[in-house]
Amino acid sequence: MAKPIDACVLPWLWERAHLDPHGFALRFESRDLTFAELAAGAEAAARRLVSLGLREGDRLALLMDSSVRIVELIHAAQRLGIVLIPLNTRLTVAEIGVLLDASDPGALVYDSGHLNSIGALRSDRFRAVESIAEFDSLPLAPIPELKPIQRDAPNTIIFTSGTTGTPKGALLTNGNHFASALAARNNIGAKPSDRWLDLLPLYHVAGLSILLRSVIDGSGVVLHRGFDAAAANQSLREDRITLLSVVATMLARMLDDNREGPYPSLRCVLVGGGPVPPELVSRAAVVGVPIAPTYGLTETASQVVTANPKDAIRKPGSCGQPLSGNRIKIVDPDGSGRGEIAIKGPSVMAGYFRAAAETRAVLREGWLYTGDIGHFDSDKFLYIDDRRSDLIVTGGENVYPAEVEAVLLSHPALAEAAVYSVEDPEWGHRVAAAVVARAGLQASAQELRAWCSSRLARFKIPTTFSFPDALPRTASGKIKRAILRSSSPPKPSI
Amino acid sequence: MAKPIDACVLPWLWERAHLDPHGFALRFESRDLTFAELAAGAEAAARRLVSLGLREGDRLALLMDSSVRIVELIHAAQRLGIVLIPLNTRLTVAEIGVLLDASDPGALVYDSGHLNSIGALRSDRFRAVESIAEFDSLPLAPIPELKPIQRDAPNTIIFTSGTTGTPKGALLTNGNHFASALAARNNIGAKPSDRWLDLLPLYHVAGLSILLRSVIDGSGVVLHRGFDAAAANQSLREDRITLLSVVATMLARMLDDNREGPYPSLRCVLVGGGPVPPELVSRAAVVGVPIAPTYGLTETASQVVTANPKDAIRKPGSCGQPLSGNRIKIVDPDGSGRGEIAIKGPSVMAGYFRAAAETRAVLREGWLYTGDIGHFDSDKFLYIDDRRSDLIVTGGENVYPAEVEAVLLSHPALAEAAVYSVEDPEWGHRVAAAVVARAGLQASAQELRAWCSSRLARFKIPTTFSFPDALPRTASGKIKRAILRSSSPPKPSI
Repeated sequence: MAKPIDACVLPWLWERAHLDPHGFALRFESRDLTFAELAAGAEAAARRLVSLGLREGDRLALLMDSSVRIVELIHAAQRLGIVLIPLNTRLTVAEIGVLLDASDPGALVYDSGHLNSIGALRSDRFRAVESIAEFDSLPLAPIPELKPIQRDAPNTIIFTSGTTGTPKGALLTNGNHFASALAARNNIGAKPSDRWLDLLPLYHVAGLSILLRSVIDGSGVVLHRGFDAAAANQSLREDRITLLSVVATMLARMLDDNREGPYPSLRCVLVGGGPVPPELVSRAAVVGVPIAPTYGLTETASQVVTANPKDAIRKPGSCGQPLSGNRIKIVDPDGSGRGEIAIKGPSVMAGYFRAAAETRAVLREGWLYTGDIGHFDSDKFLYIDDRRSDLIVTGGENVYPAEVEAVLLSHPALAEAAVYSVEDPEWGHRVAAAVVARAGLQASAQELRAWCSSRLARFKIPTTFSFPDALPRTASGKIKRAILRSSSPPKPSI
Repeated sequence: MAKPIDACVLPWLWERAHLDPHGFALRFESRDLTFAELAAGAEAAARRLVSLGLREGDRLALLMDSSVRIVELIHAAQRLGIVLIPLNTRLTVAEIGVLLDASDPGALVYDSGHLNSIGALRSDRFRAVESIAEFDSLPLAPIPELKPIQRDAPNTIIFTSGTTGTPKGALLTNGNHFASALAARNNIGAKPSDRWLDLLPLYHVAGLSILLRSVIDGSGVVLHRGFDAAAANQSLREDRITLLSVVATMLARMLDDNREGPYPSLRCVLVGGGPVPPELVSRAAVVGVPIAPTYGLTETASQVVTANPKDAIRKPGSCGQPLSGNRIKIVDPDGSGRGEIAIKGPSVMAGYFRAAAETRAVLREGWLYTGDIGHFDSDKFLYIDDRRSDLIVTGGENVYPAEVEAVLLSHPALAEAAVYSVEDPEWGHRVAAAVVARAGLQASAQELRAWCSSRLARFKIPTTFSFPDALPRTASGKIKRAILRSSSPPKPSI
């Protein structure tokens, strides 16, 4: 017997396919799909997930590059009430293993290119499907009747490493993603006639949320397999793109590559993942690119504070004002007006998956304590003064020093390690390390990089090593990273 | 500060206007509106409701004919979280007064044509606005930010008289209406390219639900002020109507009037409000009108059981099978397979408004006990054997004998009164009364009709009176209406 229908909307892609079957949904590598075509593919993917034995409430891990198939799987998961775990394809086998242990999925689907030694990950606990060909050969099982989604049902688990170095999976509900999409719509007015260019990885909330927003708003998406500045510039022109989300590094490269002047159809570029340098805003203005700096976290299902393009010029360095439905407070015990940013609103995650203590540490009485430091100006515009604790944002990827330090300290020759960020004109920041060897032992930068490379994703590996006699520490023993940052060598050591 | 966004869809008309602003929404008396235009009108209506002092959770009574303005008000109420009370325009001032007392609205908006003596209803408890001109002159107040609707929020109170003769207001939530629309969509596949012809009064759930379904499904509606067979036939052809809801009497009249053969665009006619005579199904088939008999109640936000056109021919007399999400059981204490129909599902009302005892009497453990008698055949098709208790359905209007009996018994000359239904070839059934005068007194049929006419809507007034010496009663004193029905004169006495 059918379960009661208990919400007021169908899974977003199916709802959209009903209302606008012939509307433009997705372009990927010159293949175009309407909403009806995408929904048909997603329905087939859902039936194959049922073949795999997945049911409502189960979890599905994906380790895949951007493609039509991953988009279908993302929607198929919502269709079935299955929680999606998109995994960062840049992680090592060891890192993936940790995330699979923590998230305990019923199945893993991955591109064969990604893991040479996936055999090590095959597990009795979940079914693993390698390659699209293998997935497509699964039988089309009967599927439960289409039914409305529930607001509080979990939609996604997205991992962030957290300051402890232990990965934490932010659990985002249908309602979190919907609220985020609606707040974004209220701000930039996304319409069915809009086309997003999605250059961001779908395992990051920023890339994923563009896909979800597009079916909620009825807009189309042009999806690239990865970021290439020239291809992005070409797409902006040829695909009549109106909306774009990037990190500052990507935009700078696109402007460097641009030889053809203003982009004809672009009406807004959201720039997130770190502060937007004022000179980038000016350069973009020259070619008629309106920039909207934005601030958000995995734990808030993407942007919660966004400036409009006029404010980006008028208020350099600010990420704007809270989007509709969100409240921001500055936790400011000394009354200086500067303090930890806390966020309350409908897109704040339900919590970290199977991590009650970690959840309690950041989520109290509905407020998410971000660890980021900021302040408001007199017009209530928000400025981010320091990213959460020791977070290093390099080219849009988050690196948590504690995780890299733990890998370095596992090297037999090292007694102490401190990982910190140094500014970089291209990447915003990059990862640096200061290490102290055990008495009588030593390790070269080359050897330490080799040690890291089998244990850490490439973007997490320090580009610079220094070898002081001791690390600068506070009286309580905490490393003084600010001192390391200020004394850092100006160039990477590779 | 904004309230948390706690559902996954905006008010239906606003959602639709975002996704399909230029789509055809409504035609009324040769005026066409797109979804964007209808939403703009509804937004203005909402601002005027705020001017009237109405706020989220308040109630708004409407006593209006079908028009663009009432459609705007219906959507405006959802926009603001105001509960709508559409009142039957055929009721007398006294009857309306009872409903206003029971529902206690914050405001009443009515067409000036309806009540000559509306002055009697003006109350300190609510603001009354007479005429569209008066409504349109209200100022446009600031309005709360557009926010998602909540599944469990009340949307409508629709009155039914009930067997006790006391009006009961069925409280229908957003989720009830959505579930009903979705179940209907799953059955007949309503699409944005469909056009409904709405000939039914909007104070009945059948007429109202077409409007709500149309914005949920993205279909258009052609709305008539009232039912006229020739106008309906013309509209079916000229307005390219694909879907129609009627009661059997209306369809019979349309077929009588039809001189032009098959209707070119009509793909399904839902026929509710009582059994569909097999000869009507045959007559309709001749002109290519596919009939879907349907069964539903105010308390279930319209249809819950519907036959498709093939089944209407294959299973004469059946109203089909439960729509998706609904369960039907036959409460059958004697094991005969025939018994009271009970319904469980997401479109079953929250309860009767401010009537806990009446609610408990019909709603137990999620099951709505309808009072209607029915059975399933071996293929699980439902047949309605007897409408609830003593209900008389005449031309699609429900008449409860107890209410009419109470009016008759208030006449000083009468000692006893029994109201019952007699079959009628045109109206399905009509209202009859058997009365017994007090000793030494008498009242003619003419006098009794005059007595009723100031106290009851026209369709409730008995067309036939008989004057037996005593009423047939059971041992416990209950009137044996079956005996009255079988001995009823074949023709109305007027």
